[in-house]
Amino acid sequence: MANDVRAVEWTGEGLRLIDQTRLPGRLAHLEIRDVEGLVDAIQRLAVRGAPAIGVAGAFGVAIAMMQGAREGWDQAALAAAVDRVRHARPTAVNLAAGVDRMIPFMAKGVEAVIAEAQALLDEDVRGNRAIGAFGADWLLERAGDRALRVITHCNAGALATAGWGTAFGIVRELHVRHRLDVVYADETRPLLQGARLTAWELSRLDIPHFVQADGAAASTILRGLVDVAIIGADRIAANGDTANKVGSVGLALACADAGIPFVVAAPWSTIDLATPSGADIPIEERAADEILSWGDVQTAPAGSRAFNPAFDVTPARLVSALVTETGVMEISTGETPGQR
Amino acid sequence: MANDVRAVEWTGEGLRLIDQTRLPGRLAHLEIRDVEGLVDAIQRLAVRGAPAIGVAGAFGVAIAMMQGAREGWDQAALAAAVDRVRHARPTAVNLAAGVDRMIPFMAKGVEAVIAEAQALLDEDVRGNRAIGAFGADWLLERAGDRALRVITHCNAGALATAGWGTAFGIVRELHVRHRLDVVYADETRPLLQGARLTAWELSRLDIPHFVQADGAAASTILRGLVDVAIIGADRIAANGDTANKVGSVGLALACADAGIPFVVAAPWSTIDLATPSGADIPIEERAADEILSWGDVQTAPAGSRAFNPAFDVTPARLVSALVTETGVMEISTGETPGQR
Repeated sequence: MANDVRAVEWTGEGLRLIDQTRLPGRLAHLEIRDVEGLVDAIQRLAVRGAPAIGVAGAFGVAIAMMQGAREGWDQAALAAAVDRVRHARPTAVNLAAGVDRMIPFMAKGVEAVIAEAQALLDEDVRGNRAIGAFGADWLLERAGDRALRVITHCNAGALATAGWGTAFGIVRELHVRHRLDVVYADETRPLLQGARLTAWELSRLDIPHFVQADGAAASTILRGLVDVAIIGADRIAANGDTANKVGSVGLALACADAGIPFVVAAPWSTIDLATPSGADIPIEERAADEILSWGDVQTAPAGSRAFNPAFDVTPARLVSALVTETGVMEISTGETPGQR
Repeated sequence: MANDVRAVEWTGEGLRLIDQTRLPGRLAHLEIRDVEGLVDAIQRLAVRGAPAIGVAGAFGVAIAMMQGAREGWDQAALAAAVDRVRHARPTAVNLAAGVDRMIPFMAKGVEAVIAEAQALLDEDVRGNRAIGAFGADWLLERAGDRALRVITHCNAGALATAGWGTAFGIVRELHVRHRLDVVYADETRPLLQGARLTAWELSRLDIPHFVQADGAAASTILRGLVDVAIIGADRIAANGDTANKVGSVGLALACADAGIPFVVAAPWSTIDLATPSGADIPIEERAADEILSWGDVQTAPAGSRAFNPAFDVTPARLVSALVTETGVMEISTGETPGQR
């Protein structure tokens, strides 16, 4: 398919990543051959999105093994390198889960690890397609004859996953079914994943869309300009509390006030049953200069400090539907992932 | 006072404005001598904030008269010029009200108009001080012994007024009374009035503060990091619905959910009794490039459109308190400006 976007690919010699920091201006790739390069790519968000960094982390185990063989690491050095990948970012459970899934395969050799990571990647794409279908079914059952107007935040598209998209997978499925009217994409400060990445994916698929300031989201919802909010997730607690890009809970509050559904789409692996509630999810705080400057230009006064949490937690009571590859749970009515 | 900021001043020959587009990097001034220059300064937000553009509009009538005398305008040309000033931006009622207040004085000559505009400016500063005192009293009655943690959006400070601030006037008053702990300032995309202007005013007054992305506002409130949200207003309808910088209603929803007060501070002149409700307030839509690019850099794909409303409307039911120079109205309990 001409519009296929592959954020994460194994080339045989290493990991090929779309450098998402260069979009939309340039579609450039990074060839990752060592742990330093991978951790750097994850931390500066060259690769981002919970499912995508899960897959990247899985292949990262193979990269660590290959680097260890080249550089003569002992077991302790290899374990430390794998651990560095596992902890490159704290909030998305998928990263640690992707790494952990590879551990039992390490004894069988690097080819076994690569095969398992590739299986994870393939599962992610298949799972995303299922999420798209389940989500679209659920929404269209409730929509009557209308084509839907959707608001989304950040990017949970092909770039955030192994190749199709979670929240964006539902958007694409609605589009394929000719039941999508328009998408409002929050620009998603500070790093503009909405303006740069979601708008880029929407443009590639010729989907009508508007980019708007994050501050406009609540009023776009309250003014009745959209029918549903659909977002991804970085970690979902056992009770249904959902961590996603900072700004998500603002959409959830507005949807509840407006009486429209707030839909979370994520692979089942994003659910962390070991995390009882949102209060137990570690929230990454990122560098102040993401807020206080733009490129080389200081935008705030020199003496100002920044508060820069990368994520927020939407309480389960505000999550109308959680769509995974296994189906739809109506979280705000009392269903929880932990009960399954 | 060393820290005095005068966004709008009459020099005797014209209007002296702080060019707010240059802050915080540079404190530069514009000397306005003609209607074109004033309309341009208002439209590109070199001078902004409902009370400040109200005062600038009042002096704008004098500028039009002086320009008309220089250039030999007839009455129709002068009326058209005054009308251009009056309609330079649509949402804030203060601009039209500032111009309209000058009309009866035009027959008495330009000095009478200047004197009346100066009276408006002086009233605004006095009114702001009263707003600060009423607002601080109301909050501290409810605060126990705590020093308050405040969140604010956009800039309703000295720069937005004739010299003290409305929402920021309450913040300053709390600071003067040693009852202010910290301020979270939303950066306020697209034009960053929070990061550039509010943070600059906070820095000048040595008030501890954080700048944050607008998307962080709801979670900062839900996480219990602040005690109150205080914002300004551009137009308040008779029923208490409040138009302010886009993003404000998101704070209001979060405050309601968290059970903390959402306080609107504005001079009485911001109340437009001729506007029954928020649905009747015209919402300015600004240029797409404010959203789609940053300086000279295109941030969204070339084919993307923007939705760029400059304001949103917070329904009266979410406004805990409206603080004017006449006192406090508890709007969400059913008090309305129209009843007074």
